[in-house]
Amino acid sequence: MKIIEGGVTAPIGFKAADFAAGIKYQGRTDMAMVYSDVPCECAGTFTTNQVKAACVMWDKKIVESGSKMQAVVINSGIANACTGQEGFDACEATAKAVEKELGVPYDTVAVASTGVIGMQLPVDKLVNGVAGMAGILSHDKEAGTKASKAIMTTDTINKEYALTFEVGGKTVTVGGMSKGSGMIHPNMCTMLGFITTDLSIDKTLMQQALSSVVKDTFNMITVDGDTSTNDTLLLMANGLAGNDTITSKNEDYDKFYEALFTICRFLARKMAGDGEGASKLFEAKVTGAKTKDDARTLARAIVGSNLSKAAIFGCDANFGRFLCAMGYSGAKFDQNDVELFFESKKGTLKVFDHGNPIDFDEEYAVSIMKEDEVMVVANMNEGDQEATAFGCDLTYDYVKINADYRS
Amino acid sequence: MKIIEGGVTAPIGFKAADFAAGIKYQGRTDMAMVYSDVPCECAGTFTTNQVKAACVMWDKKIVESGSKMQAVVINSGIANACTGQEGFDACEATAKAVEKELGVPYDTVAVASTGVIGMQLPVDKLVNGVAGMAGILSHDKEAGTKASKAIMTTDTINKEYALTFEVGGKTVTVGGMSKGSGMIHPNMCTMLGFITTDLSIDKTLMQQALSSVVKDTFNMITVDGDTSTNDTLLLMANGLAGNDTITSKNEDYDKFYEALFTICRFLARKMAGDGEGASKLFEAKVTGAKTKDDARTLARAIVGSNLSKAAIFGCDANFGRFLCAMGYSGAKFDQNDVELFFESKKGTLKVFDHGNPIDFDEEYAVSIMKEDEVMVVANMNEGDQEATAFGCDLTYDYVKINADYRS
Repeated sequence: MKIIEGGVTAPIGFKAADFAAGIKYQGRTDMAMVYSDVPCECAGTFTTNQVKAACVMWDKKIVESGSKMQAVVINSGIANACTGQEGFDACEATAKAVEKELGVPYDTVAVASTGVIGMQLPVDKLVNGVAGMAGILSHDKEAGTKASKAIMTTDTINKEYALTFEVGGKTVTVGGMSKGSGMIHPNMCTMLGFITTDLSIDKTLMQQALSSVVKDTFNMITVDGDTSTNDTLLLMANGLAGNDTITSKNEDYDKFYEALFTICRFLARKMAGDGEGASKLFEAKVTGAKTKDDARTLARAIVGSNLSKAAIFGCDANFGRFLCAMGYSGAKFDQNDVELFFESKKGTLKVFDHGNPIDFDEEYAVSIMKEDEVMVVANMNEGDQEATAFGCDLTYDYVKINADYRS
Repeated sequence: MKIIEGGVTAPIGFKAADFAAGIKYQGRTDMAMVYSDVPCECAGTFTTNQVKAACVMWDKKIVESGSKMQAVVINSGIANACTGQEGFDACEATAKAVEKELGVPYDTVAVASTGVIGMQLPVDKLVNGVAGMAGILSHDKEAGTKASKAIMTTDTINKEYALTFEVGGKTVTVGGMSKGSGMIHPNMCTMLGFITTDLSIDKTLMQQALSSVVKDTFNMITVDGDTSTNDTLLLMANGLAGNDTITSKNEDYDKFYEALFTICRFLARKMAGDGEGASKLFEAKVTGAKTKDDARTLARAIVGSNLSKAAIFGCDANFGRFLCAMGYSGAKFDQNDVELFFESKKGTLKVFDHGNPIDFDEEYAVSIMKEDEVMVVANMNEGDQEATAFGCDLTYDYVKINADYRS
């Protein structure tokens, strides 16, 4: 497996474009398209929020119907959630504009939105954007990068990644981009991710791989515990690498799984560290748990606690908050088994040992926590399962971003 | 039912005292005692966090054993949580100091703590504090007020309440005090509440009333979603009002229930509005829900969402955040049934109607939300159950309070 430069346009046959459609933002791009020269097998995972945006329902239908997918059109600024029938009509109009411009069936065109909830999309601007992008779709690396910028909301950096691996003598490429938990005049924190690959693989296996990988990557991100109405992760595979189609969970499948895991983990960590107002990446690693579910639940509870997040911001090794969050997580454990550590590239410090606080060096603790990436490690000493969750600190800027009045 | 001045010392036969024991804070009181002239029937509800403070386990044993309770000793500054055997020994030493000073059996003495987790209590200071308080226990209203101040952490106001009602020609008094979600150099947000009454009532009925009332009062508070290791609510009834003991759920029981509900609701709202860094009380009322549990779950999700709380701080009627929180709450509903309103003493504004956003007057919305007490009302239009949750806004001060380094 080799990391390469680029993003969604890295695999063979994928193009991208961006456009300043003026949907809500001015003076920046706010639409992107990812397009494959040939129809793709597709897989997806979507928000578990019952209040689903119109675009989520649109894409779920494509993924679950067994249909191919050839393009996805994304906009930032307005989320198209809580918008009734008018919202669905906007999805259809966008997809039909792609059909008109590029000749692909409208029911193979996915759509994704991120932005303010409860506001209608301006359909004329979307259609105009699709026409503009149809003319500039490009295989260039730069086109992928621009697309990754157009989908940003309050993200401070664009997020893309690509890598290659070998399958039966053929080089397979996987590329991806995502946007994190950002919010302009106010939005939902929405996670959008788009992964492209030129691998040839059976649709069912592809969905299984994606669903499994997501559990330990995207679904382990917590910025503020608010599950968006719009979360969407799409995977498109066009088969142009020329490998023999993967139809069973063999060695080639494992290679693909590892590549998918790597790209999703990279994007997940980037999104967590770039959470709203975040000043640092805050990870929690739980080891020695009885079950995988326990490990995930405990890790997510630690990075999800406002008190833990504020302590990380304040570089305060106030370990009681982490234990407290573990205690209310729902996972069963005995505090007398637990060991707790703070860890960063400065070193590792044990602060709690089998039910008892340790009298540690506060200065050393602060120096560990001042790093850009800080990890809390909890060894439950009750089994052999582990999981890592990705979050960020809670800062003044989080409040500022989310309290500013819409204008 | 009549509201009167005072708190825990309002009922006949209850005394209180406070003391500056220097446990962690300097220049203020940090210990309180509530004492009854005669042994009391007692009831209690405690944190559901698995990581329970030593004092919680101590009190649970008293309440669940069927034992009487005659005194409770409270300290602020250190929570006595995650403190191993040494923590339990501190509880016992405190109770035994009360036995020595006041001649009541040590296993009828409850203890409660709030403050930093993972730090040991200085037992000598506690014992000294008990001795100091034993000499100044007083029935005076002022003694109750002072006790309610000694248990504060970052609370900005002390919280006490008292009322009277008639049972069979006898005047019964209920008094109470509580502390909310405060945090000094950093603490857990801990909710402590102590209710006293001179009513005579069967212990089982008393516990049933308390457990039921708590569901719609204290348990509907959300400040930051972090369930403390120390949450404790104790109810002591000494029977000195002279009423015939209530032994069934008759009319007298109903009067007591209403009085208990009133005092708990008052204290809960006070605690929510005085949440860490809060600038206002933020309530969510859910009506027309299918079940009571759904109503509670939905209401708590609304006031518990960081995004909702930040919107309330920013006076932003960004209703999508409230719908989003309802969507991930776990309660099932159809967004096409929902109506959403913002309400304060300035008026009521409908913002969402059966699946569709309403084009409302933003200026009017801001004027409603600028009030000190703001309510979001969600009519689910699917049943006849309702519930109200109590919270506060998310402010810069919340982050400041919780990020400051321990010193």
